[in-house]
Amino acid sequence: MQDPSVRPTLATVAKLAGVSVASVSRVLNGMPASPEMESRVIDAVARTGYVPDAFARSLRARRTNQLALAVADVGNPVYVAMMRAIDASLRTTDYRLVLHSTEADLGAELDLLGTMRHGYVDGLILQSLRVGSELLAEITRLTIPTVVIGLLPDEVPIDNVRTDTRQGMRLAVEHLVATGRRRIALVNGPIDTVPGVARWTGFAEAMTAAGLDVDAAPVEVSADFTHVAGLEAVRRLLARTAPGAIDAIACSNDLIAMGALRALAEHGLRVPDDVAVTGMDDTDLAAMCNPPLSSVSTGAAERGATAARLLLERIEDPELPPRRCTVPPRLVVRESTAGGTSAASSGTRRPAEPAELMRGEP
Amino acid sequence: MQDPSVRPTLATVAKLAGVSVASVSRVLNGMPASPEMESRVIDAVARTGYVPDAFARSLRARRTNQLALAVADVGNPVYVAMMRAIDASLRTTDYRLVLHSTEADLGAELDLLGTMRHGYVDGLILQSLRVGSELLAEITRLTIPTVVIGLLPDEVPIDNVRTDTRQGMRLAVEHLVATGRRRIALVNGPIDTVPGVARWTGFAEAMTAAGLDVDAAPVEVSADFTHVAGLEAVRRLLARTAPGAIDAIACSNDLIAMGALRALAEHGLRVPDDVAVTGMDDTDLAAMCNPPLSSVSTGAAERGATAARLLLERIEDPELPPRRCTVPPRLVVRESTAGGTSAASSGTRRPAEPAELMRGEP
Repeated sequence: MQDPSVRPTLATVAKLAGVSVASVSRVLNGMPASPEMESRVIDAVARTGYVPDAFARSLRARRTNQLALAVADVGNPVYVAMMRAIDASLRTTDYRLVLHSTEADLGAELDLLGTMRHGYVDGLILQSLRVGSELLAEITRLTIPTVVIGLLPDEVPIDNVRTDTRQGMRLAVEHLVATGRRRIALVNGPIDTVPGVARWTGFAEAMTAAGLDVDAAPVEVSADFTHVAGLEAVRRLLARTAPGAIDAIACSNDLIAMGALRALAEHGLRVPDDVAVTGMDDTDLAAMCNPPLSSVSTGAAERGATAARLLLERIEDPELPPRRCTVPPRLVVRESTAGGTSAASSGTRRPAEPAELMRGEP
Repeated sequence: MQDPSVRPTLATVAKLAGVSVASVSRVLNGMPASPEMESRVIDAVARTGYVPDAFARSLRARRTNQLALAVADVGNPVYVAMMRAIDASLRTTDYRLVLHSTEADLGAELDLLGTMRHGYVDGLILQSLRVGSELLAEITRLTIPTVVIGLLPDEVPIDNVRTDTRQGMRLAVEHLVATGRRRIALVNGPIDTVPGVARWTGFAEAMTAAGLDVDAAPVEVSADFTHVAGLEAVRRLLARTAPGAIDAIACSNDLIAMGALRALAEHGLRVPDDVAVTGMDDTDLAAMCNPPLSSVSTGAAERGATAARLLLERIEDPELPPRRCTVPPRLVVRESTAGGTSAASSGTRRPAEPAELMRGEP
């Protein structure tokens, strides 16, 4: 992986190939050369990542009819919903979508951004969990139209689509409090991520607003935002707390909440009778869980569709000022907090309104 | 979307742009031209999809360091597992993976294959549910190294990785029979797909071998291989069969099985006490279900790793003879068939061996 800041030249290629600059030029222009010369030059070009200026211009001038979507984890249905909405938005255009899963790895993200100057795509929608200075520097250097899904600092002149998961977590905790829960635990994702910080802040704000002691609340951090890590985190949480110490678990996303449902079942705890559970993202898995999962929608489809619209507008008119769009979170109540399949339902909690439950039906 | 069989020439572009062939050539070679001329040519190039010969050669000669993986549904974790294994196989190489979700749509698959001649990638791994003659014709015309995951006819000279889901479904049904089930239903995916046909055949074979009347067995077909469609299919199945008429449901994949678990819970039926459920693919969701799902592994990770190896070998040596690799299916037993969290477990069924259960633990 070459350093993207040092752009290789014809001379770089010639030096590595051990041939003259003129020879490199001949081969790249398709003029006759010995097979050995050709293979040495092509090998050196490949190894340096050299892009001839005219070639790069020609690539830039061409439409590839491809747009790229890079997400942190293609295994998370929230990003699949995002992708589907973008795909649907592109259906009436000539564009097709190319997908990259960066596994929330900065190296993979930087590497991907580095490839964008090769002209494989006409535009990029980038979703990232950790928008740090290194990634920001590379994003602002991109020459293709780009939209970022996630939280960008205000001064960054890039189109940006975001949600407010801090408010989303407040909605979840307020709902748990309103349904009679007081011993509320948080199972968060990694706290060095933008979503992790937002969830924690929202949790602390809502607990404090409800007069609950946030410092005494059991908080567990999952190794990542997957159900496997979530299951392990909730197992740890249940192992270190006394039986009955927790009557609700607010989870940072649906996958972690799915792990929570599994861990609670392992402990013989009934959901929602013993412990209520909330997720976040309102993925299509939420309605499929046993019991179905109350979750805070982060408007994944709407964010995807908005990002697609911003990108198409940006391609059409590169001179548009940078735009910021925020999709508000929305609580979707299902059985994991508001009802129960078990006959032994506690009578002390406010039952959910049927209309409220309806909203969450698939 | 142009017809890929009629390759546009310089003359096609010139005619559409309303300019001379020489003018098109000048613009494409980056020589000075009026902005209006330039934009007319570039627009015509984009609309025709014209690829100049030298440019195409140059693209072919270059390594893009990108490999493409096209799957039917990126929302299905079986393909995510496949992708992760391919990604892991590429980690020691210079290649990065680009992902396409074709949504099992022939038009999208053909369109994607058509783009492969633009040289965005150095190789392709294609997973498809319906490998018909039209798709096959386009696959064999590809000039880049290609591996197909799925069932290719023997005479097609393309590297191919497959599993045997017909045998996989037999394993599931044999397991259900061995654990005392007799009123076994099948919830299949679409039967115009290769997997749909294989599942049905395996089901019929195992039922007949067990002396059960396959013609009398309740069979429901899901609109696709998703959990939403699976849920609807199992709701239909339960609505049209008498209570107690079914004591097991063999599902064509884990997503459909997840829908089955939900539909059974809606009907107040206990799994596995009232109805046992099997999935297929042994995705990471299986262990996360309530109760955890017995499933037939189709070796997704192994198929992905094998496809990556075949593709890298093919890139290295295009003269290799076509290879066929088969990854055998394997039954993974969990609570949905072999145990129970409920206290009211029926004593008439053979309890699972602890060792057997252990195999399925995450």
